[in-house]
Amino acid sequence: MTQLTYKDSGVDIDAGNESVRLIKNFVRSTYREEVLGDIGGFGGLFALKDYDEPILVSGTDGVGTKLKIAFMLNKHDTIGQDAVAMCVNDILVQGAEPLFFLDYLAVGKLNPAQVAEIVRGVANACKESGCALIGGETAEMSGFYAEGEYDIAGFAVGVVEKKSLITPARVKVGDILIGLPSSGLHSNGFSLVRKIVFERMGFKGDEKISELDKTIGEELLTPTKLYPKICLPIIKKFGDKIHGLIHVTGGGFYDNIPRALPENFGATIDADTWSVPKIFKLLQSWGNVPRREMFRTFNCGIGMILIVDEEALPDIDAHLNENFEEFYKIGRVVEGSGVEILGGDFSD
Amino acid sequence: MTQLTYKDSGVDIDAGNESVRLIKNFVRSTYREEVLGDIGGFGGLFALKDYDEPILVSGTDGVGTKLKIAFMLNKHDTIGQDAVAMCVNDILVQGAEPLFFLDYLAVGKLNPAQVAEIVRGVANACKESGCALIGGETAEMSGFYAEGEYDIAGFAVGVVEKKSLITPARVKVGDILIGLPSSGLHSNGFSLVRKIVFERMGFKGDEKISELDKTIGEELLTPTKLYPKICLPIIKKFGDKIHGLIHVTGGGFYDNIPRALPENFGATIDADTWSVPKIFKLLQSWGNVPRREMFRTFNCGIGMILIVDEEALPDIDAHLNENFEEFYKIGRVVEGSGVEILGGDFSD
Repeated sequence: MTQLTYKDSGVDIDAGNESVRLIKNFVRSTYREEVLGDIGGFGGLFALKDYDEPILVSGTDGVGTKLKIAFMLNKHDTIGQDAVAMCVNDILVQGAEPLFFLDYLAVGKLNPAQVAEIVRGVANACKESGCALIGGETAEMSGFYAEGEYDIAGFAVGVVEKKSLITPARVKVGDILIGLPSSGLHSNGFSLVRKIVFERMGFKGDEKISELDKTIGEELLTPTKLYPKICLPIIKKFGDKIHGLIHVTGGGFYDNIPRALPENFGATIDADTWSVPKIFKLLQSWGNVPRREMFRTFNCGIGMILIVDEEALPDIDAHLNENFEEFYKIGRVVEGSGVEILGGDFSD
Repeated sequence: MTQLTYKDSGVDIDAGNESVRLIKNFVRSTYREEVLGDIGGFGGLFALKDYDEPILVSGTDGVGTKLKIAFMLNKHDTIGQDAVAMCVNDILVQGAEPLFFLDYLAVGKLNPAQVAEIVRGVANACKESGCALIGGETAEMSGFYAEGEYDIAGFAVGVVEKKSLITPARVKVGDILIGLPSSGLHSNGFSLVRKIVFERMGFKGDEKISELDKTIGEELLTPTKLYPKICLPIIKKFGDKIHGLIHVTGGGFYDNIPRALPENFGATIDADTWSVPKIFKLLQSWGNVPRREMFRTFNCGIGMILIVDEEALPDIDAHLNENFEEFYKIGRVVEGSGVEILGGDFSD
C-alpha cells in the first residue's frame, strides 16, 4: 500500500519554511525596542513600558471580498495594508497607540512568493502605523480555498493611559465633526461594489474608466488609508479637546457615528462640505443605489472623523493646515438621536 | 433601472445584528473585572493590572481543515474551543496567563443560529481558559465561502512578569519531559487525516468504527484540549523549576520540542511510556504513514510537554497525582541537537 505523508495531502511544510525565510526581514524591520525574541517562538513577546493605568485596546478585522479584486488583478502587495488599516484605525478611535499586530493568512496552496508579497504589505503598513508585526499564522488549507486564493485577518493591540481613553462621555452638543479624507473605498461594501461593477456593468478588472483616469481594478484596489500618523499627534497635542474619533468602517456614517456619541445625542452632517470622490458617484449611478444606502455602506470620501471641542477648533484647524492635512468641517453634534445627512447630491 | 442595495449583494446587516443579539450573553459571561465597555465599541478594552515588568504574549491560529469535519457533521459548537485552544496553548508555553481573546469568523452566508453555535463554543472555551472574549469580527463574504461553510481564526493575548517568562535559557541537560495527554488529534494534520479517512478508506462521517467505539466523525471532531487550567497552577507553584513547556502543535514532536530548547540541546523520547491512542494507530495503518511522519504531523497522544528540573520531579509528580492529572515521564533533555523518538510501535 502506498505510503501517505502530510505533503501528499497538499500541505507542504518546506514551502512553509521557504515563506518564513522570505518574510523574515520584512517582519524584523517592523520591530520596536519592546519586542523580545524572534520569529519562531510559540507566542509573540512585547515588553510593555511603564504606564500608570494602561488600558489595552484590541481589534480584529479582515478585508472582506476586496480580496477578489486582488485575485482578479493578481496583485497582492496592497491587501496587507488593508488588513492593518482596518484594525489600527479601529483601535485609534479610543485614543490608543498601536503597539503590535498579528496576521492570519489562510491559503489554498502555499506559494512562498505570493505569501511574501502579502506579508511585505502587512509589514510596511505596520511600520507606517508604528506597530510591530510580532506574530502570524500562515495556514495551508487544501481543498478550502482555490489555488492562488486566500483569506486574511488582522489583530492589533494598542495601549492608552486610562485618563486619556476617549469615550462618548467627552462629547458635548455643539461639538464640531472634522472629516479626514479616505483614499477611496477602503475595505467595506465590496460585495455590493463587485455586483455593480462586474455583474451589472460587466467591466473587466483592467478596463480603463475615463472618469477615473485609471482602470477600475486600480481604483478598487487602492489600499485603505492608515490614520495613526495623522491622528496620534492630534490626540497627543490637543488631549481632552478631542472628544471622539469615528472610523467610517462597515455600516458607514449611519452605524459608526452613533458609536462615538452618548445616547440621546445625534449628529447632522452637511455632505456638501466635501467633494464626494468620483468612484462613489459612479457606483451610485451604475447601481442606482439609494442615497441612504450609499452613506450606510460606504465612506463616501471621509474615512475618519474627529469630534472636537468648538473652542479648540481654530488651533486644530491651524495644526492640520501646518501639516498639510486635507480636512473638512462636515457637521456638528446635536441633541436627539440618529444621524442626519444633508446634501452630497449623488445625481451630479 | 432596479435599485441595488448592500443586501441585494448578499450581505445582510439585519442578520448580522441578529447574530450579535444571540451571542451577547455568551460573550458577556466571559468578562473578567478588567474588561471595560461592552460589545459594540470600535476596540475591545482591557485594563491591565499592576505588574512590575509586564510582558505581553500573543498568538494567533486557526483550526485548519478540521472545519471540514464540522461541516460534514453539521456540528458547530466545538470548533470554537479548537480556535481558543490553539492560541491559548501557544501563549501558555511562555508562562503567560491568557487575558483576552478575539475571534475572526468569515462565513459564506450569515446564519445567525450557526454563528451563535460557533461563538458559544468560543465563549465557553474562553471561560474555561480564564480569558475574556473582548472582540471579534463576523464577516459575511458572499461568493467566497460556500453556504454553511466558514473559516475561523483566533487571537489571544496573555501576560507574564518578565522574571517569570519561560525561555529556553532555563533548560539543562538531564531535565525530564513530562507529557500531558491530548484529547485526540487536536487541530493539526487534518488535510492528511481527511485524505486517509475519506479518500483512501472511503468512510462516511457517521460511520461507526468498532475499534473506537464511536463514529469516525465524533472522534475527529473531539475538541482540542485546553491546558491553562492544568498548567498555570503548576507554573505558579513550581516557578523556575519548570524549565519549559512545549505545545505539540503543527510540526508535531520533531518541530516543536526544539523550539523550547537552547541550541545544541536535543531530546530523547520513549514513546512506549504512554499508550498511543487508537485513532493514531488506525491512521498510521490505514494510510501506511511512515513512523517519522506520524510524529512530525500528529501529537500521538501527548498535547503538551513540561520540561522540569529533575530535582523537583517528586513534588511535581505528587502535585499532578493529587490533582488527578494523567501524565507520563516521556523523555529527557540531552546534549546534541534533534529529537530522537524510540518505541511507540505503530504496527501493533
